[in-house]
Amino acid sequence: MKSSFYGVIMAGGRGTRFWPLSTRKMPKQFLKLTGCKTMLQETAIRFKGICDPGRIMVVTGIDHGETVLEQLPCMDHKNLLLEPSGRNTAACIGWAARTLVNRGEGSAVMAVVPSDHVVDNAEGFRETLSIAVGPAMDGMLVTIGIPPDHPATGYGYLEQGEEIEKDIYRVSAFREKPDTDTAKEYVASNRYFWNAGMFIWRADTILNEISLHLPELAEGLEKLGSDTSPEISLYNSLPSISIDYGVMEKAENVAVVPARFGWNDIGDWPTARKCDVAKGEVISVDSENTTVWNEGKLTVLMGLKNVSVVETDSVTLVMSDEYSQKLKDVVAKLEKEKPDLV
Amino acid sequence: MKSSFYGVIMAGGRGTRFWPLSTRKMPKQFLKLTGCKTMLQETAIRFKGICDPGRIMVVTGIDHGETVLEQLPCMDHKNLLLEPSGRNTAACIGWAARTLVNRGEGSAVMAVVPSDHVVDNAEGFRETLSIAVGPAMDGMLVTIGIPPDHPATGYGYLEQGEEIEKDIYRVSAFREKPDTDTAKEYVASNRYFWNAGMFIWRADTILNEISLHLPELAEGLEKLGSDTSPEISLYNSLPSISIDYGVMEKAENVAVVPARFGWNDIGDWPTARKCDVAKGEVISVDSENTTVWNEGKLTVLMGLKNVSVVETDSVTLVMSDEYSQKLKDVVAKLEKEKPDLV
Repeated sequence: MKSSFYGVIMAGGRGTRFWPLSTRKMPKQFLKLTGCKTMLQETAIRFKGICDPGRIMVVTGIDHGETVLEQLPCMDHKNLLLEPSGRNTAACIGWAARTLVNRGEGSAVMAVVPSDHVVDNAEGFRETLSIAVGPAMDGMLVTIGIPPDHPATGYGYLEQGEEIEKDIYRVSAFREKPDTDTAKEYVASNRYFWNAGMFIWRADTILNEISLHLPELAEGLEKLGSDTSPEISLYNSLPSISIDYGVMEKAENVAVVPARFGWNDIGDWPTARKCDVAKGEVISVDSENTTVWNEGKLTVLMGLKNVSVVETDSVTLVMSDEYSQKLKDVVAKLEKEKPDLV
Repeated sequence: MKSSFYGVIMAGGRGTRFWPLSTRKMPKQFLKLTGCKTMLQETAIRFKGICDPGRIMVVTGIDHGETVLEQLPCMDHKNLLLEPSGRNTAACIGWAARTLVNRGEGSAVMAVVPSDHVVDNAEGFRETLSIAVGPAMDGMLVTIGIPPDHPATGYGYLEQGEEIEKDIYRVSAFREKPDTDTAKEYVASNRYFWNAGMFIWRADTILNEISLHLPELAEGLEKLGSDTSPEISLYNSLPSISIDYGVMEKAENVAVVPARFGWNDIGDWPTARKCDVAKGEVISVDSENTTVWNEGKLTVLMGLKNVSVVETDSVTLVMSDEYSQKLKDVVAKLEKEKPDLV
């Protein structure tokens, strides 16, 4: 009997680096950045054919439950897990796994994916998952590795170990975000992948690994029971740690399947430019490498390079590319001074 | 008997280089750029004490007559001259002079000033006019010369000749906009002024000069009669030429009085920055020499230098300073494609 397959979508997070478009009320994953569907919708549709709509599971913040159900009307309400607070990916993923185990679906294969990444080839995505399902059913922790096309310093890297079978390799090491020289070495070696935070494993496998490496989290998850909207005090007692740092880096049985699709985490405005994230009318005079987002106005750019101009009703951001990582500092400042704007 | 004194304000023009704030419907001179009064109002108020409100004369486009009367409710309606089309400064000034002569006020002294310049010291402005009135009553064409504080290439220059009396000099030459090297020589010599387009003369003096140097204009002006809102076909028959090129450069009896005030023509967005032309809330991160204009939003600038960000309801302009002179090309293009926006 074939195991059941769950698409587990992590839809927490603020998308701070996408402010002012992404706000607390409507974070990046719920926005139509790349077309006529939201990033969450694109993510769910990508599972079509390998995952029954009734087996899409979404973990999101308590404030965004309604938004998720509006955007994914076919999903089973019992698969909507509402976090009263953000406790990082180990808690989020552990809770999803625990929920399946509680329902007697411990042998189900979960494909855990972020809700706010761009995948340029849904068919390639499904092919990649199909390859990953085999070792996952055999008890491996499978990651999807993105072949790097440039020495990015903003992602963690997976080091490719021995081949297990065609297109499946052991991960010999997890590497934190490298400096530029190290990143260049990684890319030149052809033995490293970007860690895109996409994982395939059985629910019971990851829960066992959590018990082994994060026993406190495992105990906390048991206390949550089957409530899909737990008390904040209960959820806040879970340790806040990433699945990479808390489990993957310590685990033995980790494999990587190279992605058969183009990927972009559109982590900030300059990165999003590559995915044509843009809206509104523009007149551009001697301007290069710019991003414009406006809601029904005309934006005129004259003599600008490497700049994003993002307008909402209440805010206009004009940002030179090299400042994209500092945007979160502005948001943090506004959080105190003008909370309505973030 | 002392001659009567008229403040003649030239309020035509589109202020194209101030787009998108300045539009055909509401050009720069009717906007509150520097404070709680419009530039036209500031210009009129500057005459207070030396010119009776009933002797403020305004020449403007036919579409802006109501705006002028709203902004200057104390002016005498018969002193509002409505141009059916723009025919440059010789026609505009000649018409004002002709109107006074027709009313038997040929001996009146007219101080002709643009409506969209910033004068930082109204008292100094009045002092300067008081000095200029003497030679004007004696039949001179008096200009106000702005002592240059940098080698600007965007203005014409007046060359200072012999001293007529204290603070009054003959103009030995009018110089067109110079190149940078020439402008530097002018400034270093201490013998040149910027030509700010401010003139003081008797109505009959300038009309005689127009008869002499622009007889076709003089004849056309006679045909206008005393109608303050002439037919467009009649007005269009006037030659379109600047008073500088058409009269001043050819006249003999030209004097200059050095300005006793700070002056800025706020000709474009970067120039306006020096006069603190700005509106709206701004957060600025590592940004220098920027101008922001918004109507009740927050503008966030990150890593920008020498840039203006100007927002209206329908347009956002983000412009590097060195493109300020090319803005008129954008406006010209939009004139055809999106006339509502200009």
